[in-house]
Amino acid sequence: MFKTNSYFDGKVMSIAIDNADGPATIGAMKAGEYEFGTSTVEYMTVVSGNMEVMLPGETSWKTYKPFETFIVAKDVKFKVKMTEETAYICHYK
Amino acid sequence: MFKTNSYFDGKVMSIAIDNADGPATIGAMKAGEYEFGTSTVEYMTVVSGNMEVMLPGETSWKTYKPFETFIVAKDVKFKVKMTEETAYICHYK
Repeated sequence: MFKTNSYFDGKVMSIAIDNADGPATIGAMKAGEYEFGTSTVEYMTVVSGNMEVMLPGETSWKTYKPFETFIVAKDVKFKVKMTEETAYICHYK
Repeated sequence: MFKTNSYFDGKVMSIAIDNADGPATIGAMKAGEYEFGTSTVEYMTVVSGNMEVMLPGETSWKTYKPFETFIVAKDVKFKVKMTEETAYICHYK
């Protein structure tokens, strides 16, 4: 069985995997705005839909499309928002 | 809440999404070999790990890497196998 996690009243759901690329989660987010905290460096790659991202220290949103990746530092908070359901994969480094 | 599905005793798990690109599932598979049937045309894109695929009428396996896509016709069966956990997104057309 895979380990699943649910956040924000089920509006964000993920499945944990682990392979030669290291631990990762694949997941989906409903339309909305969410703030996450990191405990490792995270490589977030959008898989479906568009995701707007505000990284720490930034003051504007940047849009990421499918197969585009943004990197988040360890021990920070970052915000994402989307107007439709999106899917992503997050690699923990 | 997202709809999730589990197959093959939990060795395959998916989350259903729907957005401007149409209905899709993102999911993960444990190491193993699986046969699936289609009820629509399916665009399968590997997201993490390597997936070996045998499409209908073929007699050899072909390996797909992350962000490579194979297309499966409607109303057929196809086989996939992998030696480590893999993640994918499947768009239904």
